[in-house]
Amino acid sequence: MELPLSKIRVAILGYGNIGKSAEEAVQAADDMTLVGIYHHNEMDKIRPQNTDVVLLCTPTREVSAYAVPLLKQGICTVDSFDIHTEIVNLRRQLNAVARESGAVSVLSAGWDPGSDSVVRCLLQAIAPKGITYTNFGPGRSMGHTVAVKAIDGVEDALSMTIPLGTGIHRRMVYVKTCEGADKQAVEARIKADDYFRHDETHVIFVDNIDELNNVAHGVNLVRNGVSGTTHNQRMEFNMSINNPALTGQVMTACARAAFRLKHEQRAGAYTMIEIAPVYLLPDSDENNVRRLV
Amino acid sequence: MELPLSKIRVAILGYGNIGKSAEEAVQAADDMTLVGIYHHNEMDKIRPQNTDVVLLCTPTREVSAYAVPLLKQGICTVDSFDIHTEIVNLRRQLNAVARESGAVSVLSAGWDPGSDSVVRCLLQAIAPKGITYTNFGPGRSMGHTVAVKAIDGVEDALSMTIPLGTGIHRRMVYVKTCEGADKQAVEARIKADDYFRHDETHVIFVDNIDELNNVAHGVNLVRNGVSGTTHNQRMEFNMSINNPALTGQVMTACARAAFRLKHEQRAGAYTMIEIAPVYLLPDSDENNVRRLV
Repeated sequence: MELPLSKIRVAILGYGNIGKSAEEAVQAADDMTLVGIYHHNEMDKIRPQNTDVVLLCTPTREVSAYAVPLLKQGICTVDSFDIHTEIVNLRRQLNAVARESGAVSVLSAGWDPGSDSVVRCLLQAIAPKGITYTNFGPGRSMGHTVAVKAIDGVEDALSMTIPLGTGIHRRMVYVKTCEGADKQAVEARIKADDYFRHDETHVIFVDNIDELNNVAHGVNLVRNGVSGTTHNQRMEFNMSINNPALTGQVMTACARAAFRLKHEQRAGAYTMIEIAPVYLLPDSDENNVRRLV
Repeated sequence: MELPLSKIRVAILGYGNIGKSAEEAVQAADDMTLVGIYHHNEMDKIRPQNTDVVLLCTPTREVSAYAVPLLKQGICTVDSFDIHTEIVNLRRQLNAVARESGAVSVLSAGWDPGSDSVVRCLLQAIAPKGITYTNFGPGRSMGHTVAVKAIDGVEDALSMTIPLGTGIHRRMVYVKTCEGADKQAVEARIKADDYFRHDETHVIFVDNIDELNNVAHGVNLVRNGVSGTTHNQRMEFNMSINNPALTGQVMTACARAAFRLKHEQRAGAYTMIEIAPVYLLPDSDENNVRRLV
């Protein structure tokens, strides 16, 4: 597969934690040009004449609203949509739009969902029977933190994920309430939210969120499985990382894959397990095979 | 992508350690039918009328000799060719043959090269700067053991790989010589072989190899890298596994990918980093996205 010689024109929509990290990752990529960083109300500035791929660094619940009009213009999108139970529906929706316009959407392209999903898929293939446990943290969950911040009565918040083993987690939610907010009501709203209602959740009210902030995060993904008829095949994947930096980097790598899939006329919506890993990298496949296989 | 409803007809060529494990893995796969197990001199029994994919469980140096005539008939092949420095050349050769006949070859489909390569590629993408160390063992290397057994004067052998850290390994080679063999000459031949000449290699002569045998193996693959401009992103992949069982399972999963790629008219030769991980699994992509992403 020969790659086009021109650089991939990448735009960033949204400029929070992930947008800033995505900017750094795109700037560091020799095969990309950063053509613009846009706030969410500047969508109309992004045109197919100046942009190949948009990194949607917007809140997860707004991914669809931003992705659809861009895909309809034939512009590829990459998001880090992280509500696991809704990924299949988003994929169906974006796939239909992308196929019609000849564009490519890469969805749920963070580290979980995202790169962890690739590891889970690989471990499922090489030991088809068994149990995989994904243990997160300790660390700040961006998705959960954004969800708390959107709750009525919350001025600022931080949601920490604490691994309890076998894929069970505690949520430690630190909240600064708005002036005059009913703390009991705020706590009830948090615990009723889809992000929290399945987990042991503790809400702690504090005066200052900033002094608790730390974007470190991690995962311990373990599988004990069966290959053929052989049991006790043990596999483990660990990370200790800066969370937005990793998410911005994964999205940037997926922008490359989106561009290539469009170039190959394979329009549609893809999660990371549906993309050949070498598509995430610059340089020729042969050079990457030489270095990495 | 809709998958065909008929089962994938898989044959196994070669019936050593890997062939036996591959048999177990194919038998355990609901979407496959094992159509035959052939010794290496029974190639002419394998025809496109009865076989979709052949798992080449033959010595690594003979992969090309068996793959080429099968691919020319339009039959897909999967091998676990493991001489890292020659993968690019084998890929070029098999790619040309496979494309011409509309078949698919998946090469170097074991665990290293193979599933480890997928992890290395993924880690390269999510932390593009940094160093990855692949530390093998302690465990018996099948490729190295076969290489020693092929050396003149060797009756039986076992090559153990001992990790020394930062990707450096010691080779502990246990050898039973043929009656009357010159042990010094045997040792010199082993140490001059491409499999051994780059590593610290110790040759130990013993009377019985069988009582040393254990197919346990493992890997510790570590990367400390940079995502965007953020350093110290730490990632690690560990396995402790039955070596032929894992290899046979990986080859079986890759047979599924080969069949699907052929069905999609994407003829050619692929290493595992060039294949979407979901292609390794049975069931629909949507169901796998639901379960694993």
